[in-house]
Amino acid sequence: MAISEHIRELMSGSSWIRKMFEAGARLKAEHGADKVYDFSLGNPNLAPPERFPQTIRAILDEQVPAKHSYMQNAGYLETRKAVAKTASAEQAVSIGENNIIMTTGAGGAMNIALKAILNPGDTVLVPSPFFMEYRFYADNHGAELVPVPSAAGFEPDITALAAAVDKRTAAVIINSPNNPTGAVYSENAIAELGTMLEKKSRETGRSIYLISDEPYRHIVFDGLTVPPVMKHYRNTIVATSYSKDLSIPGERIGWAAVHPEADGGDELAAGMILANRILGYVNAPALMQRAAARLQGEWVDAEIYRKKRDLLCDGLEKAGYELTRPAGTFYLFLPAPGGDDEAFVEKLQKQLILAVPGRGFGAPGYIRLSFCVADEVINGAMPGFEAALDA
Amino acid sequence: MAISEHIRELMSGSSWIRKMFEAGARLKAEHGADKVYDFSLGNPNLAPPERFPQTIRAILDEQVPAKHSYMQNAGYLETRKAVAKTASAEQAVSIGENNIIMTTGAGGAMNIALKAILNPGDTVLVPSPFFMEYRFYADNHGAELVPVPSAAGFEPDITALAAAVDKRTAAVIINSPNNPTGAVYSENAIAELGTMLEKKSRETGRSIYLISDEPYRHIVFDGLTVPPVMKHYRNTIVATSYSKDLSIPGERIGWAAVHPEADGGDELAAGMILANRILGYVNAPALMQRAAARLQGEWVDAEIYRKKRDLLCDGLEKAGYELTRPAGTFYLFLPAPGGDDEAFVEKLQKQLILAVPGRGFGAPGYIRLSFCVADEVINGAMPGFEAALDA
Repeated sequence: MAISEHIRELMSGSSWIRKMFEAGARLKAEHGADKVYDFSLGNPNLAPPERFPQTIRAILDEQVPAKHSYMQNAGYLETRKAVAKTASAEQAVSIGENNIIMTTGAGGAMNIALKAILNPGDTVLVPSPFFMEYRFYADNHGAELVPVPSAAGFEPDITALAAAVDKRTAAVIINSPNNPTGAVYSENAIAELGTMLEKKSRETGRSIYLISDEPYRHIVFDGLTVPPVMKHYRNTIVATSYSKDLSIPGERIGWAAVHPEADGGDELAAGMILANRILGYVNAPALMQRAAARLQGEWVDAEIYRKKRDLLCDGLEKAGYELTRPAGTFYLFLPAPGGDDEAFVEKLQKQLILAVPGRGFGAPGYIRLSFCVADEVINGAMPGFEAALDA
Repeated sequence: MAISEHIRELMSGSSWIRKMFEAGARLKAEHGADKVYDFSLGNPNLAPPERFPQTIRAILDEQVPAKHSYMQNAGYLETRKAVAKTASAEQAVSIGENNIIMTTGAGGAMNIALKAILNPGDTVLVPSPFFMEYRFYADNHGAELVPVPSAAGFEPDITALAAAVDKRTAAVIINSPNNPTGAVYSENAIAELGTMLEKKSRETGRSIYLISDEPYRHIVFDGLTVPPVMKHYRNTIVATSYSKDLSIPGERIGWAAVHPEADGGDELAAGMILANRILGYVNAPALMQRAAARLQGEWVDAEIYRKKRDLLCDGLEKAGYELTRPAGTFYLFLPAPGGDDEAFVEKLQKQLILAVPGRGFGAPGYIRLSFCVADEVINGAMPGFEAALDA
């Protein structure tokens, strides 16, 4: 016996991803990376806004003691104050700096939230399709992720979610704008979800937390805004990051916010701060925290992604694909022609196009295309998309 | 039921730390932070070497696509190659870039190693006194930390460690130079430990991994060097960071190295890379990885800490304290005069001096003083140290 049996299971369970990435890597090695049209990764291709490197340079030039030292595990006070202001505006409740914890990206925020609330044997519900990492995040802390199929238009199915709640239910995760579907939940759906969770918390005798993972909040199109979540449910924890806002996913900077009236209140925030420390994050990266304090509102221009969405969707529709345009994010989630997602992903690979089969998100029969790529990639891939449809 | 019962237990178990920090914060609020002599934190007070901000500026100035994007979960190839060279020299074995994983500090490195090897119910041995976070790190992944008292001079007690090994033993953690004792393990001790673990692995039928946590490797005094660990034991994982080398603990950048001949070999490294992803770290911060690739060997001048050590130890000895000078790190671990560590820490607090009681490291009867502070703090505290001894 060498490595952990559980990590071995997890590795074998995600072997299809490895297989897919290996197929992609093989194609790139064979044909040259520039000949392969890679729509498989959620890795923004935009450069960060010019104010980002400017701000980093300004911070480096300043005389500040302990500039790169440890700080409180929750993060710099200055940063948390700036974030609290943004979060208050977005969530339509008054959030103080003590309800903000700076984190190692949204992934860190999700993990400290789950570590602070989960007991062994708990379940965490998520509308399906869902971002595949959630399964691991729940599992990290001894709980099981339970996907609940979404309603039409990929809105959360409140009745189905309500039916899935039992005494083991510790949390519901939502992700709007959604990866992989691009759906943005309506304020109505959020309000209904809040009412349902309020009722179910009373019935089950435990506070069911709503964890709202919002890294795509600022990438929405056609005049849409993302409704506040905390306004509609007290026991909400928001998790987000600057990965997409500033196109800096590799820097691992994000935050968690705890609703000021959440059950457990200060204890919950304290538990999340302890989790930030003991999970080995310790604190969010210092320089990025200092930058974040000064870059609130300096978000990527969503119009750039809107144009890419339309370039891709126009082309695909012209080629004969059936699809619904995403209201936000940089993902298009469309039915796999022929119905078999893996088979169609293989057809696309023959055209040197990389996509992700929907089964990776709990939705076989769909494929996900990330359009955070150069326009040339979208244009260059069109003949291949056409050919795959006819194959 | 709101927050997790387990996190509540963990919080209440570490309430003495909170109490201590609150006492410190209260003193600072009452008397002014500059009037309080804080020896409680392992937070380097030195500025990073000038080449650190220079390197960050140079990277910001360069035209690199996807400069702050996601990369492979293991980290940039260029960075891993540079680290592999350093690690090979330090460990006296040939380590390739595929055996290096860039991490969110040494805390991240420890957690991905433990996640990859631990099964529920396993134990992890550690020579005591020990860095208190290890208990949480083992617990995060369902295992129990078992402290084993050290031998004289705080060398590991190989016989006692051997006696503590059973079928549940998945790993032994060592930390040399040691926090809190400042001890540097002899090459002899490392070699004996390796031989013992080899034998015990055969006996128990499982590979017992040695996790060597080495963030203080470059902070040693009086011409000492830290012996290689991998040279003496195949199943070794090294965890370390740039926190102390470059005085940038807040930036959360470090690495893990897997011995090229470790049992489970590639699978172990793959498991650790998966753990890096699914624990929510995803990857080590991008900009810091790029800097690390260029700053190998650019370590802090240990002579600065040697002088601080001697300033502190000379003063304390003159005042009548009994102590042994640490061979490395920036910690002095000395018997609490009177024998009661908590009582003596309180006496020091009356003199506006903050120290950590040894029970926090599994060693009641000692106190830890961090001398990574300004010389003025050391000099200014001397009358208080004298008064506390007479109190």
